[in-house]
Amino acid sequence: MEKTVATEEREGEDAEQVVNPWQVSAGGKIDYDKLIVQFGCQRLDEALIDRVQRLTGRPPHVFLRRGVFFAHRDFNEILDAYERGEKFYLYTGRGPSSEALHLGHLIPFMFTKYLQDAFKVPLVIQLTDDEKCMWKNLSVEESQRLARENAKDIIACGFDITRTFIFSDFDYVGGAFYKNMVKVAKCVTYNKVVGIFGFTGEDHIGKISFPPVQAVPSFPSSFPHLFSGKDKLRCLIPCAIDQDPYFRMTRDVAPRLGYSKPALIESSFFPALQGETGKMSASDPNSAIYVTDSGKDIGSKIRKYAFSGGQDSKERHMKLGANLEVDIPIKYLGFFLEDDAELEHIRTEYGAGRLFTGQVKDRLIQVLTELVERHRRARAAVTDEVLHLQF
Amino acid sequence: MEKTVATEEREGEDAEQVVNPWQVSAGGKIDYDKLIVQFGCQRLDEALIDRVQRLTGRPPHVFLRRGVFFAHRDFNEILDAYERGEKFYLYTGRGPSSEALHLGHLIPFMFTKYLQDAFKVPLVIQLTDDEKCMWKNLSVEESQRLARENAKDIIACGFDITRTFIFSDFDYVGGAFYKNMVKVAKCVTYNKVVGIFGFTGEDHIGKISFPPVQAVPSFPSSFPHLFSGKDKLRCLIPCAIDQDPYFRMTRDVAPRLGYSKPALIESSFFPALQGETGKMSASDPNSAIYVTDSGKDIGSKIRKYAFSGGQDSKERHMKLGANLEVDIPIKYLGFFLEDDAELEHIRTEYGAGRLFTGQVKDRLIQVLTELVERHRRARAAVTDEVLHLQF
Repeated sequence: MEKTVATEEREGEDAEQVVNPWQVSAGGKIDYDKLIVQFGCQRLDEALIDRVQRLTGRPPHVFLRRGVFFAHRDFNEILDAYERGEKFYLYTGRGPSSEALHLGHLIPFMFTKYLQDAFKVPLVIQLTDDEKCMWKNLSVEESQRLARENAKDIIACGFDITRTFIFSDFDYVGGAFYKNMVKVAKCVTYNKVVGIFGFTGEDHIGKISFPPVQAVPSFPSSFPHLFSGKDKLRCLIPCAIDQDPYFRMTRDVAPRLGYSKPALIESSFFPALQGETGKMSASDPNSAIYVTDSGKDIGSKIRKYAFSGGQDSKERHMKLGANLEVDIPIKYLGFFLEDDAELEHIRTEYGAGRLFTGQVKDRLIQVLTELVERHRRARAAVTDEVLHLQF
Repeated sequence: MEKTVATEEREGEDAEQVVNPWQVSAGGKIDYDKLIVQFGCQRLDEALIDRVQRLTGRPPHVFLRRGVFFAHRDFNEILDAYERGEKFYLYTGRGPSSEALHLGHLIPFMFTKYLQDAFKVPLVIQLTDDEKCMWKNLSVEESQRLARENAKDIIACGFDITRTFIFSDFDYVGGAFYKNMVKVAKCVTYNKVVGIFGFTGEDHIGKISFPPVQAVPSFPSSFPHLFSGKDKLRCLIPCAIDQDPYFRMTRDVAPRLGYSKPALIESSFFPALQGETGKMSASDPNSAIYVTDSGKDIGSKIRKYAFSGGQDSKERHMKLGANLEVDIPIKYLGFFLEDDAELEHIRTEYGAGRLFTGQVKDRLIQVLTELVERHRRARAAVTDEVLHLQF
């Protein structure tokens, strides 16, 4: 799971956009409407969001209200079943390729925590240390170490640990899980994975073997210690939309194995500081805010690198106002400033040129510093004992 | 592991011979000398056999004396190390695709038992129920059931159960074993497995994922409960030569992982009753003798189907003698009649036309009936308790 968002600028406006778990590129901004058509998923509309509110008795999460999670597959069926009194379980994950998470990494976990709290359902979290060992050429030991470190950050997101199972593939693959891997693998040809994931003959067979590993947590029978006798329990997967290819494959295969298709709820990508066409890259620490950044780091990164939609002189700014469409501080506030009224106020004033970039950035620095501080405190409280219970 | 011997008649004498774990075909008889060159292994010569006798202080096994095991890779290095006082371990296996074993299936196990007794070394036996589930389209449950049934036949071969670990892939894949699978998979491209195994784009990815599963029992670190701290222990694999492609791949990869290459000792194929160019097929029970055949079955199969090199009339036979090159009773006696002097006597007399096919067949029926009876008694003694200890 997880990939670095890499919206690469390409020549020509009509350049085809490529979105898969390892590459996200488009001629400029990603066209999410086009992506929905291309992938064959559905838009998450107002009616569905209202229904979530009604069923859970709590306001929809910021990420729902503001369209961060914007697409789905069969989420309506999950809600139908929930309404009939049937539970489901959540499945999300992370590929542990780096020591520290950035804000983009937190998004699926923050949203999953909300879903777990709102629906009171079990959750499995897969750490694909095997994947990262193969794709990033990390040693087995280093991948597992990163998985453990990342697990602390994930637990720090505040999951109900009595209902959460976090596992590393290197630890957990085997038994019922491996049997399901084999069942899935039997149903998928090499040509099919080439079509879905774009593998080539020079890719190693570890890559070709991996899709079933990410597929099978979608099936309750992969977790006999959690879901024994509950083979019909539906699975809902919150993830970024670049993971859709894995689950398109999984949904294709599920009926042939007599299993239910997993439902999905999918987010857009979190933009790099340099703007939506920039690249949030592990090799450039200035492209993202990390949960390990100090308040000072955050301040200087936002001030220096966050792409501004403000005008280039005070006079022009007061006259024309900021271009909110490209302004990164506004986008980031859209993710992390919970107060709808305040956000609307900032957008209006900034767009009209009555607020300046510096002021908006200051507010963002405050919001992010608080968020990162809160995360750091929560992570520090994850003792080895808690980690051991979970992982 | 294991495949049905399928020496398919093809047009033209120069038809290329194809030998891989799923297909054995040639324009007539397999040319084993050519295969040694093609595969790049070495002939198992007299000097090496003498050395085995000297080192173990016991006569070499019939299968060594008579060239059934005829090729090797680095077997000399295993003996060098043994001479220095270093042990090794044995690894063999079976793909559990059928309920009952036939005589051809017993050959690697009979030989492995001899090696274990002669060298007093540990042994791991892999039952590739995952492979058969994928290739033969058996259910997971049926593959595992066959693995258990086959394990009884294997134990009945008389292994030193205190030094033997029999495992099913569905049970055992995971942990250290899975980590090694990932390490191997990282080193092998799709194009490479196409070159080695002849996969096509329409093959399912389970097949493409499988070679590392058969590779990693070659590495002691895949068995931490057996070989902890013995990462340098060498592995010797007795197998039929059609399995060579797996271990060519394994030997290629081993140094890149810092592991020793497994050594191999490889057998020719056991012929079908209908002759060396015939097909020993699971779908034709009359092509082979099964360990479940009664004495009566054995008698009637040998009399009816065993291809004879005798002449078509008594007179011609007495004049020309039998053609031993194509005679199946003589070949089978070569495998299973231990007494060298008696075998030589039969060959001479039969070849000279002084013994008739019926007489040779009678002796063979006697030998095989005894062997199968002995096997059946040993198998009946394999209680669930013993099976459970082992498997």
